[in-house]
Amino acid sequence: MKLHLEDVEVGTEFVSGEVTITERDIIAFAEQFDPQPFHLDPDAARDSFFRGLAASGWHTAAITMRLLVTEGPDIAGGIIGAGGQLSWPTPTRAGDRLHVRTVVQSVRASRTDPGRGSAVLKIETLTSDDEVRQIFEVRILLFSR
Amino acid sequence: MKLHLEDVEVGTEFVSGEVTITERDIIAFAEQFDPQPFHLDPDAARDSFFRGLAASGWHTAAITMRLLVTEGPDIAGGIIGAGGQLSWPTPTRAGDRLHVRTVVQSVRASRTDPGRGSAVLKIETLTSDDEVRQIFEVRILLFSR
Repeated sequence: MKLHLEDVEVGTEFVSGEVTITERDIIAFAEQFDPQPFHLDPDAARDSFFRGLAASGWHTAAITMRLLVTEGPDIAGGIIGAGGQLSWPTPTRAGDRLHVRTVVQSVRASRTDPGRGSAVLKIETLTSDDEVRQIFEVRILLFSR
Repeated sequence: MKLHLEDVEVGTEFVSGEVTITERDIIAFAEQFDPQPFHLDPDAARDSFFRGLAASGWHTAAITMRLLVTEGPDIAGGIIGAGGQLSWPTPTRAGDRLHVRTVVQSVRASRTDPGRGSAVLKIETLTSDDEVRQIFEVRILLFSR
């Protein structure tokens, strides 16, 4: 059952399974997209602001998206975000077991297009100890039945 | 010359070189992090909201970060963002030649730590026709000399 505009309710919560991020994952992502010493090299990272190897925030974001797409709400038409407020309260570390908790904050029909609407989701990326690695509050598109 | 808190001025602009994104890049990223039909399969994408293959917004974000790190402002201690407002006004397409324009919006010293400060950067990801694919307004950390 794909979720349409009419199905999405404020307060509904979705929780994904967990995925473990390794040192190798962190370095491979950083080599490709964020080649800074504190994401690439545990020794160099020790003397940096992060005091140890930290994942790129964009890596945390990408893993979050994978968990959302594969284990999150099954939204008709897919998960299409227009943008939102993104923050990384703490850095993701090698060995973190991450899961994603999504809560529907608001839902509205489009004023101009009766076939569409949108919802604001608060998407938190958490460790197994519920440390918050990322918060993304995003407006996503919804389609009517 | 690495940029410290004292060097960063409101209105300063940094423009990166260009990078071309291919269909293969888009699909490879999506397979790993955002496996939705409109990011994976040109045929399936044709009937989707995007009316053709579109890159994951997180792919646009990751490419933006690479351009910023390799060709953006050379900030002492690295580019460390706490978070900010992210939006994708238009989808990134195969063949897009992307560059990044960064403008310093504000700078301030830390109230509590004399060795630190921060700046808000407006980071726009643009095609060669200056179509805006992504805007990220982010607060980054700065260190004093």
